[in-house]
Amino acid sequence: MSQRKNNRAEPPESGEVPRAVVSRLSLYLRELQHLVAEGTHTISSGDLGERLNFTDAQVRKDLAYFGHFGYPGIGYRADELIAAIRKILGTDRVWPVAMIGIGNLGRALLGYKGFSRQGFDIVAAFDTDPTKIGIVVEGIQVRDIVTLAEAVRQHHIRLGMIAVPAAAAQNVADMLVGAGIEGIVNFAPVTIALPPHVSLLGVDLAIELEQISFDVVNRQRKS
Amino acid sequence: MSQRKNNRAEPPESGEVPRAVVSRLSLYLRELQHLVAEGTHTISSGDLGERLNFTDAQVRKDLAYFGHFGYPGIGYRADELIAAIRKILGTDRVWPVAMIGIGNLGRALLGYKGFSRQGFDIVAAFDTDPTKIGIVVEGIQVRDIVTLAEAVRQHHIRLGMIAVPAAAAQNVADMLVGAGIEGIVNFAPVTIALPPHVSLLGVDLAIELEQISFDVVNRQRKS
Repeated sequence: MSQRKNNRAEPPESGEVPRAVVSRLSLYLRELQHLVAEGTHTISSGDLGERLNFTDAQVRKDLAYFGHFGYPGIGYRADELIAAIRKILGTDRVWPVAMIGIGNLGRALLGYKGFSRQGFDIVAAFDTDPTKIGIVVEGIQVRDIVTLAEAVRQHHIRLGMIAVPAAAAQNVADMLVGAGIEGIVNFAPVTIALPPHVSLLGVDLAIELEQISFDVVNRQRKS
Repeated sequence: MSQRKNNRAEPPESGEVPRAVVSRLSLYLRELQHLVAEGTHTISSGDLGERLNFTDAQVRKDLAYFGHFGYPGIGYRADELIAAIRKILGTDRVWPVAMIGIGNLGRALLGYKGFSRQGFDIVAAFDTDPTKIGIVVEGIQVRDIVTLAEAVRQHHIRLGMIAVPAAAAQNVADMLVGAGIEGIVNFAPVTIALPPHVSLLGVDLAIELEQISFDVVNRQRKS
C-alpha cells in the first residue's frame, strides 16, 4: 500500500486516469498472469472481477479508459489483455532500476523475484558504508553512492528505490534527481519532497496491517 | 500496494465500507500524524486532500462513512481525527503480531519502525531452519515453527505476517489458521487460499514500480 504524490501544484487534467484505476490495472494483470499459468486463456469481466472481489462493471469501466478489450461471447483473451495492460503500465519493456541502501530491506528487495517478473531489473546497488561497498549481494556488486550519476548514465537507469534510514532519505532522493532519475519508490519511513518532474511513491508497510485489523475489528462488530 | 481478498463468495453487504475508503483512511491518518509532528493542529478537508492529491469532496465523503468529524470554520481537529481513525481501523490498541520466515525480508520487517508506530507489535518470530532457531533478531528470539500454536496462545497473537519462500507459504498459512490467527499479511510472491473467517492481504512490491512506470510513460506521451 502506498501513498502517491504526483508532485503537481495544478489540479489533474480532466482526461487523466484516476490513480485508483492504475493500481487496479496491476491487480488485473497479476490475476490474468495467474490464470494463464493455470492454463485458462479467456475470462469474462464478471469472473475476473469475482477473483478480486470487484464487480464486473468496475472491471469494464476501468479497462474502458484505455480501449476495447473484450469479445462478445468470449470475454477477454488473457494473453492479449496482459500485453495491453503491460503496454499501458509501461512494463512492456525492461526498466533498469537503481537500489539505494543495502541494509536488511535493501537486501530483501534485491532478492525479491517479483520485480524482474514484471519488467524491473535492478542493475545497480549503492550504499555509503565502506564495509558494504564492493560486496556482491544477489549477484550485484554494491557501489559507493558517489558513483551514482556515472552508473545511471552507464546503465540508462530511469527509476530508483530508496531503502536507507529515514534521516538519509531526502539526501539520497536529491542525489537520484541530480543523476537524472525520473521516478522513485521510497521505502524509508519518512516523507520526501521532489521536484515536479519526478514521480514519487512512498511505501508504508504498516498500511497492509491496518487494512487487516480493520477487517478483524469490523467482523467482530458485525457479529 | 496490495491485493485484498475478503474470502467471501457472497457479494459485499450494501452497508459495507468500500476497501478503497479503508485504505485512504490509512493515508489520512499518516498525513494527520505528519501535521501534528509539524505542529499543526487543525486542517480543512481541502488542505488535507491537497496534501494527498485528493479533492476535498473525496475526503469528506470518505470520512462521512464513519461519522461527523469537522467543525465549521475550523476544519478537522488533527488529534481528534487521528484518534477517531485509529479507532475505526482498530489500531487504538496494540496488536501482537507473529512474523513467519526470517530471511532477508523477514529480518527487514522485524526491524521496520513503521509497525510499532501504528500499533503493531511483532512479539514472536518463527522459522524452520535449525541454524536460525534460537538466534535473536531485532531483540526477538527466533522460534521453531512447531511451537507456533503455543506462542499464539501465550502472547494472544491475532495477526500474522508471512515472509517465507513461495513454495512454503500455503503450508505456513494453514498453520497460522490452525493456531487461531484471524488475519494474515502475505509477503510471499504467491497467491494463498484461506477459509472465509480469516482476512488476507497479499503484498506485491512490484505494484509500486508499475505505478511509477505508468507515470513516467504517461508523462512522455502527454508532452
